[in-house]
Amino acid sequence: MKILVVGSVAYDAVETPAGKRESQLGGSASYFSVSASYFTKVGLIGVIGNDFDSADRAMYESHGIDTSGLIEANGKTFRWSGEYLDDINTAVTLDTQLNVFGDFEPELAEAHASAPYLFLANIDPALQLKVLNAMKSRPKMVANDTMNLWIDIAKPALEELISKVDTLLINEDEAKQLTGEEHLPDAAKAIISMGPNSTVIKRGEYGATLFGRDFSFAAPAYPLKKVIDPTGAGDSFAGGFMGYLASIDKVDEESLRTAAIVGSTMASFAVEDFGLDRIKSLTKSDIDERFNAFVNLTRFNPLT
Amino acid sequence: MKILVVGSVAYDAVETPAGKRESQLGGSASYFSVSASYFTKVGLIGVIGNDFDSADRAMYESHGIDTSGLIEANGKTFRWSGEYLDDINTAVTLDTQLNVFGDFEPELAEAHASAPYLFLANIDPALQLKVLNAMKSRPKMVANDTMNLWIDIAKPALEELISKVDTLLINEDEAKQLTGEEHLPDAAKAIISMGPNSTVIKRGEYGATLFGRDFSFAAPAYPLKKVIDPTGAGDSFAGGFMGYLASIDKVDEESLRTAAIVGSTMASFAVEDFGLDRIKSLTKSDIDERFNAFVNLTRFNPLT
Repeated sequence: MKILVVGSVAYDAVETPAGKRESQLGGSASYFSVSASYFTKVGLIGVIGNDFDSADRAMYESHGIDTSGLIEANGKTFRWSGEYLDDINTAVTLDTQLNVFGDFEPELAEAHASAPYLFLANIDPALQLKVLNAMKSRPKMVANDTMNLWIDIAKPALEELISKVDTLLINEDEAKQLTGEEHLPDAAKAIISMGPNSTVIKRGEYGATLFGRDFSFAAPAYPLKKVIDPTGAGDSFAGGFMGYLASIDKVDEESLRTAAIVGSTMASFAVEDFGLDRIKSLTKSDIDERFNAFVNLTRFNPLT
Repeated sequence: MKILVVGSVAYDAVETPAGKRESQLGGSASYFSVSASYFTKVGLIGVIGNDFDSADRAMYESHGIDTSGLIEANGKTFRWSGEYLDDINTAVTLDTQLNVFGDFEPELAEAHASAPYLFLANIDPALQLKVLNAMKSRPKMVANDTMNLWIDIAKPALEELISKVDTLLINEDEAKQLTGEEHLPDAAKAIISMGPNSTVIKRGEYGATLFGRDFSFAAPAYPLKKVIDPTGAGDSFAGGFMGYLASIDKVDEESLRTAAIVGSTMASFAVEDFGLDRIKSLTKSDIDERFNAFVNLTRFNPLT
């Protein structure tokens, strides 16, 4: 197993300008692992309830995802309900039912604990730290995501975690909230001064900007004709980003740049349909074609 | 003269989070012509009042700008007052005093009327049309900018104008308002179906996206540590964009792509200080260095 991901598995109720779904498979670990599965072997650590559909587990497995760490607990699967009606970039949470996720205590088997790439998706930073500390040795690369809630209520644990990771992936507003900086490069610099070597600042339909210690890289979003459901775009980005890095087993500047475009590629698929509908049914040539569309979207000649 | 620009010359009162200026030289034609002057010879058509500072005319002339079409009328120069306090991307207009600009009737001298490149900055589309119709022959390239006001009160004239230009440069919100389309590629397609071969959709701190009939190109904004005053960013973009095209005298896809990065380069300078303070004092090597920073900001390797 090249990448281990710990995060949420959920059933989501989502409404967007394109329509409504009552209960679709979601959760950060779902989007991440399916996205990364096109590049490398992924193991998923999470918790589900007795109501979890066996077809959903089968879908993970059809992507070669190791679900031995996806534990069934007594109760119902985590449920999130949200809408993107006024602003396609920002989810308004209508309801959150933690259910079995409320008592989630991630446990790592031997094979999980030696994964060389680790993604700590957006969950309580205390749990993210617990997983990181349970690794047998320090992975080659650790990245994490987080959200405003943890900045508000668990900042010390979050800061401890960030001091230990290689890359923080974070939304633009949350990067500003975390650092108290107004300008993107200042926020990125402040994050890097907390520990990471790089940070990916996610900007919704405007793409993402990758900052390293001495470079920055602007990955645009693909100008899609139709955004159906933005849920999971960030985790799909992270899956493509880390999946690509794990597949080439390199994390230098050049690899991070290409990985950001792979991330944008996967995010662009994720939003093209509800939930995992598009991203779970890609072919290698879909991905190559979209990546090449990013090459075309960004290439220009030098000054003459 | 390679480019003729018609637009406003103004004294602006501006407040931004970085500070306040009571009366600084501004106006679309000022930003455009100074920006374009680094690439080619520009002629400026506009009107000023008796209060216009001769040092400001001298500044234009020090950039080789032909000011023979900058007419002095009895009265005061156009004044605009605005602030960018809540959102650095959006000016809130506090006051507009048209003054001599209210009776502005652009007149073209012989030399002006044969310019091969024409930029119709954001003024009443009836005046933009008048200038276009006064050209001796159809210029090689005509571009224009506009704003929500003209979409609201002068849409037929604006549509007639747009049907006759090669490139419309327009803010994202205004592109959506003009076309009634929600998604950027749909808005761009609708604009191109109105007549232009290409459109540049400006997205403030998120850069600009260029759309042609069969390509799109994402030009990021430069991740500046400090944005002092966004006034004139769009017109400075337009000046770099058209100035570069006029200097190489080509308007094909490849040239448009590079021109969009030159535009972003000039816009990035414009916002680094109040008014024209930064953009009026650039060197060729400042521009080359910033352009190369855009190369670094956007380059990535293919998939391996």
